[in-house]
Amino acid sequence: MKRYRSLVAYDGTNYFGYQRQRAAHVTVQVKLEEALAHISQQPVGVVAAGRTDTGVHATGQVIAFDLDWRHGVAKLERAFNSKLPADISVSQVAEAEETFHPRFDARRRAYQYRIYNQKDRDPIGRLYSWHVKRPLDIEAMNEAARHLVGVHDFAAFGKPTQGDSTVREMFRAEWRKQGSMLLFDIEASGFLYRMVRRIVGSLKRVGEGLWTPDRFAEVFLAAESSQSGPTAPPHGLFLVSVTY
Amino acid sequence: MKRYRSLVAYDGTNYFGYQRQRAAHVTVQVKLEEALAHISQQPVGVVAAGRTDTGVHATGQVIAFDLDWRHGVAKLERAFNSKLPADISVSQVAEAEETFHPRFDARRRAYQYRIYNQKDRDPIGRLYSWHVKRPLDIEAMNEAARHLVGVHDFAAFGKPTQGDSTVREMFRAEWRKQGSMLLFDIEASGFLYRMVRRIVGSLKRVGEGLWTPDRFAEVFLAAESSQSGPTAPPHGLFLVSVTY
Repeated sequence: MKRYRSLVAYDGTNYFGYQRQRAAHVTVQVKLEEALAHISQQPVGVVAAGRTDTGVHATGQVIAFDLDWRHGVAKLERAFNSKLPADISVSQVAEAEETFHPRFDARRRAYQYRIYNQKDRDPIGRLYSWHVKRPLDIEAMNEAARHLVGVHDFAAFGKPTQGDSTVREMFRAEWRKQGSMLLFDIEASGFLYRMVRRIVGSLKRVGEGLWTPDRFAEVFLAAESSQSGPTAPPHGLFLVSVTY
Repeated sequence: MKRYRSLVAYDGTNYFGYQRQRAAHVTVQVKLEEALAHISQQPVGVVAAGRTDTGVHATGQVIAFDLDWRHGVAKLERAFNSKLPADISVSQVAEAEETFHPRFDARRRAYQYRIYNQKDRDPIGRLYSWHVKRPLDIEAMNEAARHLVGVHDFAAFGKPTQGDSTVREMFRAEWRKQGSMLLFDIEASGFLYRMVRRIVGSLKRVGEGLWTPDRFAEVFLAAESSQSGPTAPPHGLFLVSVTY
């Protein structure tokens, strides 16, 4: 029995989020565990770095699992992928330290949020971006986002899990434009429940001119979740990478 | 009653191609005609520049239709979009000459074919590109593709419709690399049935080293469809633009 780690990419459209649930919902974790059980002919538990919500995507989720396998990691990766549906894939399967834990050992997590900022719908990208028709002021959104960087109490944008602190270190929070797409790259020591989507919902208010960047800073520093903007929809969000 | 023209974008994943069929299949044309009938309360026929196959996408399809409408094109576009499903959208709705015909008047059509050339699957882009695992030699593919440019008989890559000639003028046929994605831009006076996908299937053989660029040229010049490579799958293909 050895511990393995792997990157996982998935299209979250058809899943009730990453984590296995009590109800008979199809989740990414269920599919991963089914595939490994199929390969090893015994139940396998999979632990992941981040529990993404229903509809959220991932290009760089990290998982770990223990397995009895004697054919090398290249064959393991091929076998694993062959048992997964087309909207989930694994890559960079490797042996890990036996104490490696994808969630507890993570030092940074990076997400990307995509807004398609165009009058017309984009049928091709519709499942992977939030369509916002009115032009957003990306300069103002970046001015507001700069307040997030550093060590702060993020209680304005989310609740802690299990009585945990709401203080996190934010390393990066930045918008850039790529054609009609606005890409928000955000990286922190950790994130509270729905934190990225709540930050994006509030920054959108800034982009629309409803809030000034100063108003955003006030809401943020008040550290009360009741004041934040609406939560942005899940299908624009991607878990991009985890650093150990 | 006036004639209107419009651009149409669609995700072809869930449609049996563009064109209305005898069977009760859901096609893009059916959805467009239903939307217009809903707006105008009478049957409306829609004519398009290209009849894309099942699973093929479009970002720049062109359509025309006759309509009795007194509220201006901006309102027509909004009403039209509001009656269409999320995977189809219209833009640049405008009044057209009453003799305008999107198919017969077209002088050039441009398609793009996308190959995701990576060992690992891409769950996010899987519906919009052909996944080819083995690395393809894009230089060799471009050397072969250069033979296509000019006025030629394209019988090697498709049959004519209704006894039409198989001679077409090719303006552009070129691969470029964007990260792990190989993009093939191809523009001609017109295309035979499945011509782009058959060209891509043959160029892939060149990219894999199974055919030399010279072998591709021989197959092309033989002008016999029995010699061409396999047909590439539809979900990598996009109708990008039509020039009048």
